Amino acid sequence: MRIALGLEYDGSAFCGWQSQPGGCGVQDHLEKALSTFADRPVSVLAAGRTDTGVHATAQVVHFDTDAQRDDNSWVRGPNSYLDPRVRVLWARPVPDEFHARFSARSRTYYYLLLDDPVAPAALNARMGWFHKPLDVAAMSATMGMFLGEHDFSAFRDAQCQAKSPVKVMHEARIERRGNMIVFTFRASAFLHHMVRNLVGSLVYVGAGRFDAEALAKVFASLDRRNAAPTFAPDGLYLAAIEYDPAFALPAFRPFPLFPS
Amino acid sequence: MRIALGLEYDGSAFCGWQSQPGGCGVQDHLEKALSTFADRPVSVLAAGRTDTGVHATAQVVHFDTDAQRDDNSWVRGPNSYLDPRVRVLWARPVPDEFHARFSARSRTYYYLLLDDPVAPAALNARMGWFHKPLDVAAMSATMGMFLGEHDFSAFRDAQCQAKSPVKVMHEARIERRGNMIVFTFRASAFLHHMVRNLVGSLVYVGAGRFDAEALAKVFASLDRRNAAPTFAPDGLYLAAIEYDPAFALPAFRPFPLFPS
Repeated sequence: MRIALGLEYDGSAFCGWQSQPGGCGVQDHLEKALSTFADRPVSVLAAGRTDTGVHATAQVVHFDTDAQRDDNSWVRGPNSYLDPRVRVLWARPVPDEFHARFSARSRTYYYLLLDDPVAPAALNARMGWFHKPLDVAAMSATMGMFLGEHDFSAFRDAQCQAKSPVKVMHEARIERRGNMIVFTFRASAFLHHMVRNLVGSLVYVGAGRFDAEALAKVFASLDRRNAAPTFAPDGLYLAAIEYDPAFALPAFRPFPLFPS
Repeated sequence: MRIALGLEYDGSAFCGWQSQPGGCGVQDHLEKALSTFADRPVSVLAAGRTDTGVHATAQVVHFDTDAQRDDNSWVRGPNSYLDPRVRVLWARPVPDEFHARFSARSRTYYYLLLDDPVAPAALNARMGWFHKPLDVAAMSATMGMFLGEHDFSAFRDAQCQAKSPVKVMHEARIERRGNMIVFTFRASAFLHHMVRNLVGSLVYVGAGRFDAEALAKVFASLDRRNAAPTFAPDGLYLAAIEYDPAFALPAFRPFPLFPS
């Protein structure tokens, strides 16, 4: 039987999603809790392999098991073994053709950025930070160039293992909430560090170091060396994964930092 | 010269505001950073002595020093020595009659509570949690009884050192944002654990364990033993301190969890 789980985690507590020899990946914690609960080894596959420090409020994973438990037990059981900074939010049996990663139609990431002379403290490691006010209108005006199908090589990490640098961006927008700036990116898939690299170059636009034309040149150059440095993982949240509604996966709860 | 500072901190990283022999209080961290920066001992006095696990986005402290530094240096200097989970937001010279605690006209606390089957993960230790949906309208309907001058002994911790259990509540309200509930309490001052004890009893109302009449009886009994258990510190934020505008203290930045 194949089961899908919805997950939320504080990325600052783990060394990324992926399993690590030291056991510090979210995947290690989850597999250990699921295996204990199921009383047999369980291996999971995730929709998005978040880096160290990157948070998720809507990660989706799947696993195969012959353990028989009711849906709610797959939530409460593992949660009783897990570090409190990772929680299973829901569990749902899915058909064998469901694949957390390959069935995903799109992923949505938020990047939360505080532009203020002083770094975040109460939400340290949960928001990115820039020490000067940023021009949100200038950033917003450039973001249309990312919409649609493009080669995102200029924003691709050298370590990226994706087969193709071509991705389809469905949504790329920015809004201000108080002195917090919220970037939203929804795409078919993302290259390694793509959101953090996009945010880095957009911050250059907001700070006046790149104008729209310069950013367009960086994008068209397909050369990572022309873009701005990778921005910190602190403000990055995997916030939605879209699947065929036929899978009838449960809804995630509202994003915790601006729930309404 | 007397100087006032505005502070923000993540209470989950410290053992409360107050100085401790082990040096784990926010006060210990701040005094050490200020003393290093000023090159002479500095002792601070705070408006609100928050407990272990309680956060502040608008703590105010003052200290006296003969060290001459410009205002902005009193922000950047200490911040360069401080743990990133506490930040000085502003500094301002104040007249000798200013006292962070005694000049404060009111304090405002928020309590953020997630009512959801699964505890918060991305914001673990930054929100309170109740595992079942709560009736916000029922809670709201009772909160008028706390407004005005009252003896709050029913919500006073046994360890409380306040001279009088009588406080003036200026504001006591609740609102829902997604599946987060936000309590706001503004009063002349608060007794030890008063907000957490109020929240505990209001959660009893929201869960149907107390009706409005039962809560009124608890309040009138002046007996802590009749009220519900003290709620967790996780969701509690010292969010504003009001002073005479003549002191012209700088404004705090917006509350980070719902900035607009």
